[in-house]
Amino acid sequence: MKIAVLGTGIVGDTIGSKLIELGHSVMMGSRTSANEKAKDFVSKHNGKADAGTYTDAASFGEIIFNCTSGGGSIEALKMDLANPLDFSKETPSLAISNTNSLGEEIQKTFPKANVVKTLNTMWCGLMVNPAMINGGDHSVFISGNDDGAKKKVKEILKSFGWAENNILDLGDISKARGTEMYLPLWLHIYGATKNGVFNIKIVS
Amino acid sequence: MKIAVLGTGIVGDTIGSKLIELGHSVMMGSRTSANEKAKDFVSKHNGKADAGTYTDAASFGEIIFNCTSGGGSIEALKMDLANPLDFSKETPSLAISNTNSLGEEIQKTFPKANVVKTLNTMWCGLMVNPAMINGGDHSVFISGNDDGAKKKVKEILKSFGWAENNILDLGDISKARGTEMYLPLWLHIYGATKNGVFNIKIVS
Repeated sequence: MKIAVLGTGIVGDTIGSKLIELGHSVMMGSRTSANEKAKDFVSKHNGKADAGTYTDAASFGEIIFNCTSGGGSIEALKMDLANPLDFSKETPSLAISNTNSLGEEIQKTFPKANVVKTLNTMWCGLMVNPAMINGGDHSVFISGNDDGAKKKVKEILKSFGWAENNILDLGDISKARGTEMYLPLWLHIYGATKNGVFNIKIVS
Repeated sequence: MKIAVLGTGIVGDTIGSKLIELGHSVMMGSRTSANEKAKDFVSKHNGKADAGTYTDAASFGEIIFNCTSGGGSIEALKMDLANPLDFSKETPSLAISNTNSLGEEIQKTFPKANVVKTLNTMWCGLMVNPAMINGGDHSVFISGNDDGAKKKVKEILKSFGWAENNILDLGDISKARGTEMYLPLWLHIYGATKNGVFNIKIVS
């Protein structure tokens, strides 16, 4: 599949590398086409990836992973993205609110896109390699308005190693509020345990 | 131990009943001493509990469980509570904020009290009976400024059936923010699974 990864930080690098490993065609998107990190990424993967502006990447990808930082997401995505797109992931924003979320804002800003919020509740290493802890048995959430887009994202999650029964569909994109507001608890657990390689598992 | 339970709703009833079962002396506190639910509680427990105003209960208890609803907590607690007290639990408020919490507000309002936030991340039945799911193997958080008070609360949690290694001390009372902000995710999981008898377990 042709996939765009917006953002060349640690999250974009991790997601992009895994997608290449899985055989997808990846274009890394950044603010300028001359982005050094994007160039490094392409050379690290022996030319199996491409790099371009956000606009280039968005035109290229059937699916777009938003791996830009929370605060800059909408600004970054506004740089000429007007096609019907999937935004599959964004890192959580600290601008937490009980009546809105970054996921919803992105959906509102790009009404033709099918935004799916997922993977924002854990360290990026675990996103693409859940088997790293507890035999892969822990929880990941998805939310979004479009069932077809959620199904596609679910398939990608499964290709990352997530078990079907550990992928919980919370409902529409407004459910991004809950997963974004979980971030402070994540940070407190990390602070108390000094270990970021953890996740939560729903038990009942 | 002499323990006050403020609030006579489902949470207060559950916590109070468990404390009586464990042999503690319990006084239920409510807005008025003639509260019907408090009277019912006392008669249900064959007079093993007492009932009174918030002030009566607070004077009685060495430890106070705040089981009033989030929105009304401070108002309720202000009704003449001026002694050095432990407020061991309060139900989470929906007035979620990234820079404050109900736990901190209570601590600020009652600076001589040793506020400990705990148990607010699950259904009340699980609070006092963690063994109900997953063999009791799931997580509970505590936060507060006073180590002695946290130690006392930890002992009570253990008497409820919580295993030492599943009680995570997140730090000072500002960490109440994280556990309070988890509520929306809790509600979304509940909404998606139609089952409130669940909890999260930290795996690493």
